Amino acid sequence: MTQGSAEDSLIARYFKPLATDPGALGLVDDAAVLSSSGDDIVVTTDAIVEGVHYLATDPPDTIARKALRVNLSDLAAKGAAPAGFVLTLALRSKEDAWLRPFADALGEDTRTFACPLLGGDTVSTPGPQMISITAFGRVPNGRMVGRTGAKPGDRILVTGTIGDAALGLDVLTGGAAAAALASDPAAREALVSRYRVPQPRNVLAQAVREHASAAMDVSDGLAGDLTKLCAASGVSATVEVANVPLSAAAAGLIARNVVCVETLLAGGDDYEVLCTVPPAHSDALIAAGRAAGVVVTAIGTIVAGDERPRFLDGHGQELALTRLSYSHF
Amino acid sequence: MTQGSAEDSLIARYFKPLATDPGALGLVDDAAVLSSSGDDIVVTTDAIVEGVHYLATDPPDTIARKALRVNLSDLAAKGAAPAGFVLTLALRSKEDAWLRPFADALGEDTRTFACPLLGGDTVSTPGPQMISITAFGRVPNGRMVGRTGAKPGDRILVTGTIGDAALGLDVLTGGAAAAALASDPAAREALVSRYRVPQPRNVLAQAVREHASAAMDVSDGLAGDLTKLCAASGVSATVEVANVPLSAAAAGLIARNVVCVETLLAGGDDYEVLCTVPPAHSDALIAAGRAAGVVVTAIGTIVAGDERPRFLDGHGQELALTRLSYSHF
Repeated sequence: MTQGSAEDSLIARYFKPLATDPGALGLVDDAAVLSSSGDDIVVTTDAIVEGVHYLATDPPDTIARKALRVNLSDLAAKGAAPAGFVLTLALRSKEDAWLRPFADALGEDTRTFACPLLGGDTVSTPGPQMISITAFGRVPNGRMVGRTGAKPGDRILVTGTIGDAALGLDVLTGGAAAAALASDPAAREALVSRYRVPQPRNVLAQAVREHASAAMDVSDGLAGDLTKLCAASGVSATVEVANVPLSAAAAGLIARNVVCVETLLAGGDDYEVLCTVPPAHSDALIAAGRAAGVVVTAIGTIVAGDERPRFLDGHGQELALTRLSYSHF
Repeated sequence: MTQGSAEDSLIARYFKPLATDPGALGLVDDAAVLSSSGDDIVVTTDAIVEGVHYLATDPPDTIARKALRVNLSDLAAKGAAPAGFVLTLALRSKEDAWLRPFADALGEDTRTFACPLLGGDTVSTPGPQMISITAFGRVPNGRMVGRTGAKPGDRILVTGTIGDAALGLDVLTGGAAAAALASDPAAREALVSRYRVPQPRNVLAQAVREHASAAMDVSDGLAGDLTKLCAASGVSATVEVANVPLSAAAAGLIARNVVCVETLLAGGDDYEVLCTVPPAHSDALIAAGRAAGVVVTAIGTIVAGDERPRFLDGHGQELALTRLSYSHF
């Protein structure tokens, strides 16, 4: 009907079915409403850029899932239940062949994680595509789990396995892992999937809220992220590297000296929950994980001090980590 | 201290001073908190892309203000008081010469509009820079002003003047207005300023909430935006084009046949409030504008029907608008 409605018709075609929350107003308004509920609203925002956070060759369905899930992972670590999200899509083209699988996969994830689309903005760019999401969660008043509450004596727990996504990226970019797994397509696929499609631990959000003294998601590398958490809490930490949970594929590559564990500790894109819990709560959180089908592993202990966390090998020797994080920046 | 902290130190240097709200947690967390207050949270998101929504030659301070103000304008039209925003910054470089004036101007606007920075994400891009903001406002429960409440008989009101920003862009890109105003630098500067630095009407948010039956901000052209509002409300409209408020510069360019009024009605980037009000409320909203120093002008009437709004000239003849909106897409 009008120029300017190119964006409107794109939104109606692809994204209106995802806007199931009444607060989205069917995407006909410029704004959405998060109704008052007595809960605090937790807000998190993460963008992914083509060629930086995902590969131009990644399928559109996995790009959609990654864009939402990196934000869902933040909500999980904060102990928040998803409430919805807004989406800014910077597109080079409007091809149905890209938008249709993107929107369908995003729609599936909105249902899987009960996190409806509330609104957004679609802009054209001559550059790399970019997906920026701001996601909202609810926690009871004053109950968001921060980074500043870790206390000496707290156990350090982490969900899932560490380093698989970094290995998946290595496979996709023809690194050492690709060569070493040339005859093992199942392992390659499992690692690539961990890079492309994070598995945010929202099922554990309530347990994190009930038990954790501090938490964050591991997105830039376990070593660097634990360092940030400790700095925010004014504490240090000791990690038993032998206890850091690894997938069979990752353990195999280490055993064959294809990669070293230091690389995995500093690898990005894990999207697991890293948290500290008072000792008396440790078993309860591990049990909550077991009940939810998520392995939760104790990897170390918070100690007093302001030094960088120490990562100890099986002989009690400190690993010299030359790199703590993966930096996109 | 760590790789990965390049982003952290950039945030600390430039953006932490803007994060004055306790819910921002000093920007040391991945998430922010909007505390429960019994109010509804209004959410809006708008991105601006270099070369699309602003010019690569625009100064960084005006880019910062535009990025925030296009979102503040949405909050104003929804009748919401600003509560804060999150910022996603996709940067090609981290030059202080760009970031310093950008952050300083953004900081000024956070104070001017009482809209603190709550969090964000900084990513690198090899492409055009992009600033994506999600802004939050508060309204009493159930009181957000939508687009769907316009009723036949309602007056159509608009704030400020229409078309100046489109003329400012024309000046900057060497169009007809640039040539016509070659000897009038003050007029050129006024129009350019309207393009680069919107003047969102947040001071009128409460009056809009008290009086308007429907409202939106004019961002893509008055004609197209009124068409959208009418479609959302299931009504039509009649606009007296002679009543559409124009600046002296714009009126002068029309009088000299440099541009036609149709161009201004379809021009983008006005960031004025367009609203419909029951006739008994019209004077009150106009008076509220006068008290706040914002001209509010009645330009037409909502009528029953589902035709496109009609724009009538001084002889009651309908203008044939070939274009209703400015489309970046």
